[in-house]
Amino acid sequence: MNYQPPLEDSRFIAFDVLQADRALAALPAFAEVDRDLMTQVLEEAGKFVADVVAPLQTVGDQVGCHFEQGRVTTPPGFRDAYQAFWQAGWPALSSAPEDGGQGLPAMLEAVLYEMLSAANHGWTMAPGLLHGAYECIKHHASDDLKAWYLQKVATGEWLATMCLTEPHAGSDLGLARTRAVPQPDGSYRLTGTKIFISGGEHDLSDNIVHLVLARLPDAPPGPKGLSLFLVPKFMPDGSRSAVHCDRIEEKMGLHGSPTCVMRFDDASCWIVGEPGRGLAAMFIMMNAARLHVALQGVGLLDAAWQKANAYSLERRQMRAPGRGKSAAEADLIAEHPAMRRILDTQRAWIDGGRVLAYRTALELDRAKHLASADPAAAASAQRWCSLITPVLKSAWTEQAFAGGSACLQVLGGHGYVSEWGIEQIVRDSRVAMIYEGTNEIQAIDLLVRKVLADGGQGLSALLVDLAAQLPEGHAGQGRVRRLEAVTATLVQAAPGDATLPYEVADDYLRAVALVLLDWAWARIDATPGAQVPRWQAPRQALVRHVLPEFEMRLRIIESRCAESREGAVA
Amino acid sequence: MNYQPPLEDSRFIAFDVLQADRALAALPAFAEVDRDLMTQVLEEAGKFVADVVAPLQTVGDQVGCHFEQGRVTTPPGFRDAYQAFWQAGWPALSSAPEDGGQGLPAMLEAVLYEMLSAANHGWTMAPGLLHGAYECIKHHASDDLKAWYLQKVATGEWLATMCLTEPHAGSDLGLARTRAVPQPDGSYRLTGTKIFISGGEHDLSDNIVHLVLARLPDAPPGPKGLSLFLVPKFMPDGSRSAVHCDRIEEKMGLHGSPTCVMRFDDASCWIVGEPGRGLAAMFIMMNAARLHVALQGVGLLDAAWQKANAYSLERRQMRAPGRGKSAAEADLIAEHPAMRRILDTQRAWIDGGRVLAYRTALELDRAKHLASADPAAAASAQRWCSLITPVLKSAWTEQAFAGGSACLQVLGGHGYVSEWGIEQIVRDSRVAMIYEGTNEIQAIDLLVRKVLADGGQGLSALLVDLAAQLPEGHAGQGRVRRLEAVTATLVQAAPGDATLPYEVADDYLRAVALVLLDWAWARIDATPGAQVPRWQAPRQALVRHVLPEFEMRLRIIESRCAESREGAVA
Repeated sequence: MNYQPPLEDSRFIAFDVLQADRALAALPAFAEVDRDLMTQVLEEAGKFVADVVAPLQTVGDQVGCHFEQGRVTTPPGFRDAYQAFWQAGWPALSSAPEDGGQGLPAMLEAVLYEMLSAANHGWTMAPGLLHGAYECIKHHASDDLKAWYLQKVATGEWLATMCLTEPHAGSDLGLARTRAVPQPDGSYRLTGTKIFISGGEHDLSDNIVHLVLARLPDAPPGPKGLSLFLVPKFMPDGSRSAVHCDRIEEKMGLHGSPTCVMRFDDASCWIVGEPGRGLAAMFIMMNAARLHVALQGVGLLDAAWQKANAYSLERRQMRAPGRGKSAAEADLIAEHPAMRRILDTQRAWIDGGRVLAYRTALELDRAKHLASADPAAAASAQRWCSLITPVLKSAWTEQAFAGGSACLQVLGGHGYVSEWGIEQIVRDSRVAMIYEGTNEIQAIDLLVRKVLADGGQGLSALLVDLAAQLPEGHAGQGRVRRLEAVTATLVQAAPGDATLPYEVADDYLRAVALVLLDWAWARIDATPGAQVPRWQAPRQALVRHVLPEFEMRLRIIESRCAESREGAVA
Repeated sequence: MNYQPPLEDSRFIAFDVLQADRALAALPAFAEVDRDLMTQVLEEAGKFVADVVAPLQTVGDQVGCHFEQGRVTTPPGFRDAYQAFWQAGWPALSSAPEDGGQGLPAMLEAVLYEMLSAANHGWTMAPGLLHGAYECIKHHASDDLKAWYLQKVATGEWLATMCLTEPHAGSDLGLARTRAVPQPDGSYRLTGTKIFISGGEHDLSDNIVHLVLARLPDAPPGPKGLSLFLVPKFMPDGSRSAVHCDRIEEKMGLHGSPTCVMRFDDASCWIVGEPGRGLAAMFIMMNAARLHVALQGVGLLDAAWQKANAYSLERRQMRAPGRGKSAAEADLIAEHPAMRRILDTQRAWIDGGRVLAYRTALELDRAKHLASADPAAAASAQRWCSLITPVLKSAWTEQAFAGGSACLQVLGGHGYVSEWGIEQIVRDSRVAMIYEGTNEIQAIDLLVRKVLADGGQGLSALLVDLAAQLPEGHAGQGRVRRLEAVTATLVQAAPGDATLPYEVADDYLRAVALVLLDWAWARIDATPGAQVPRWQAPRQALVRHVLPEFEMRLRIIESRCAESREGAVA
């Protein structure tokens, strides 16, 4: 069974729960983007995903990518699908019309990428970096560079990479050693080796545009010494540049995406942005990129859920308790409480994750399109993105793996066998906990760099807003107060105990994730049409099985703070 | 880096923490088995594991098993290693001397299988079923059958399988359709298809002995209609029997173990035990088999931990908080709190799991060797095995997967790449949550079939014993009382709410697992030599990060019981 785009659910969440059409209509850029248009775009997207991308899921895993003498061949069908994808305009969905784009909301792109990732995570890696590269070139490249590359990247005719990691510099990019030397004509020559480069080499597009972090000869050590460079596979004159793929990695999953070791051998290139401002130029797209990884989590979990759900409605094993006699010799797996619990719990994460991820995409739209018209509103939208994105990236990629594994369990031994396709989803999903900033780094980003940095003010303001939207007497209001109190305790304890926030950052992020998930479900619950088993069963699972973790996380943090106060910790 | 047998830790836990030498010396069968002898056996076992089995870990995954025209070829080196294994007497470690065995304690076999599974889970699947088949044949087969097969299986010269699952009968063996028809000479002819048969066909041993569940022509439907049959690959006269391997499965992992579809085509065979008593004949070995799966969990988690630990002590990334300036440009990964937490938490599960698993193996020894001399003591040992084994199987196989994945995270992107070997451990480990009774079935076995069945008396008695061994004022005593109270609540609520115990069985099992883990660590803590960082760091992680789950689980159960009382649940 291939993945089925869940259009009905996506529309319900985008338009009924979040009222995205109203929110977007308030932005001048989208004055003409109404619900009908968006519905039509999503339906077309769903068709493309179901007809073109989903059928390549198994071949992507089983045939995978092949490397020979510097060339990478992607699995059969991948190039044709990609060519059809960019020619249909999908990569350009939210790019500016003047760059060849369609100028539609980021929220639609979010739904598109959720579906693409769910249908075929490996294939989707290729276009997944395009929009970030587009924004980076648009905002930081020289006019000459833009003239050559902006439209090609905006439309996806040429694919792009981000070359950050080096053999000894993963999470710590400040250790990067790749060097760029200025040339008399204003260009540069770049030398070094980058690893874990998704789509560093392939046969999907006719050119590849690499954005590479490197150091100028006089650069200081550490992250502030990094500049950003654009290195094309083929130069504007059509010659092949000195960029070589030395190897692709064998991996746990994601076989449809070549993970390349790239060697730059005195390669001609141009600087993008100011010298020493390479990380800043890349960070412009970080919230969008991390949101896309969170959407991968939502999509992959849904893909796993769909397989488990279908299996549970076909296969009978043993008598389920409390069912009485039936004509069949056994009851459906879906009727067994332990399996029902797995299925409904994952759905609580999928639906709630969708609410939060689409809402965050709406905030990205607001932050971008209100920047000049209403700076205060844009700043508030930016605050949401900054605080919420690391939570979504971390919690939903973890859930994709752990919850995907729970869905695999519903199939029993068949889940472990490749034929059913669910074990591929579990293997593929695992990488999302690592890339685009590991989940542990997301947690530190949230607690240390964002919450503690302003004494908890920003998050507190956001949580109070959310709590105010909960119905009178909703248990979530008490949880928000608990979280605020624990945040205050942390703000007080952290200055005297350097390791404390780093030890409890994961617990803190989980607690925030659960408050957000609870809020998302309160939004669903308040929506006409949600008072039916389809929505009430996951909601019940949320209350029974998911939210109790909140109190556990807070107690872990409180105990650790108490230890700190008592001087039990050095 | 290959897996290193952790002999020092195993000896410390077996002899210092559990004082296994004293416990075994009290059993007449082991009067001459002293600490020196056992230490020597474990050292030899460690050598065999490190020198012969561990080096085949990668080839087992990457080359895997091949199927062609009914024949299965195992990975290069597997047959030689297996031949060396049985010829050295390892499969016969705990078998009776009169059957060709060495008559040593099951506890030594437990340590051996933990190490084997950690070093090479796929290879270890082959001998993993031998001891169970041996016990089954020994206690249920006719004298003729024993004369032909008992010694061959006891020594491992011939390997054995358990053929239970059918295409439509997995957890629910009562649905099995394979049929056996009696023949005039007292033998039977067996026809049907069995799936998921580990080692159903291979080139490791010169014959394979299949133990197969099937129905006699007049058998009733359901589990009571099943009888057990012995079907050899080669008949006593040397002819090939009508047992065919039709296919091997492609799987998420465990590529070194062929998972076979076996077709019995009017195959000659003999009954083992009484007609209709097939399940009973197989269940004799269930506690031992489940304990071995729990030991796989302990071993695989240790194997993953070893890789993550080694990596964290080699590689530097970023500054760790609270460390001050150092000469290096970054700090070791092992010094970062989020990574330290992962490593120490897994070690809490590994060490505590070892205490519990070895203790359970000692109880198996007691139950077996005191059966006639001291029936009360044997019954008490049997109670331990019956109650504790499902908890260990479920909680430690889950931890092998989830904790193995956490260890993978320590390697960042390198963890996802096959070269480092840790992703193989995560993939291999996943199956242990499914086979030998899924983890959900273990939880139902514990709560419904064992705890609720006697009103909680048996578990309560066991827990009170454990609590009495905790130091005065130890927090574990309060947890035992909490667990007793919740058990009483469940005993009261379950009769009126058929689905309740099935919904909270997983939570209940987790709560019991945490009480046991806490007890295990109290035993370690009370042992001279444990007051050093090696043991105190995991113990601190246990208290900070693992035990808080206990209260969460109990609250989930209590809330569900409260819903039941309020009639909120149909």
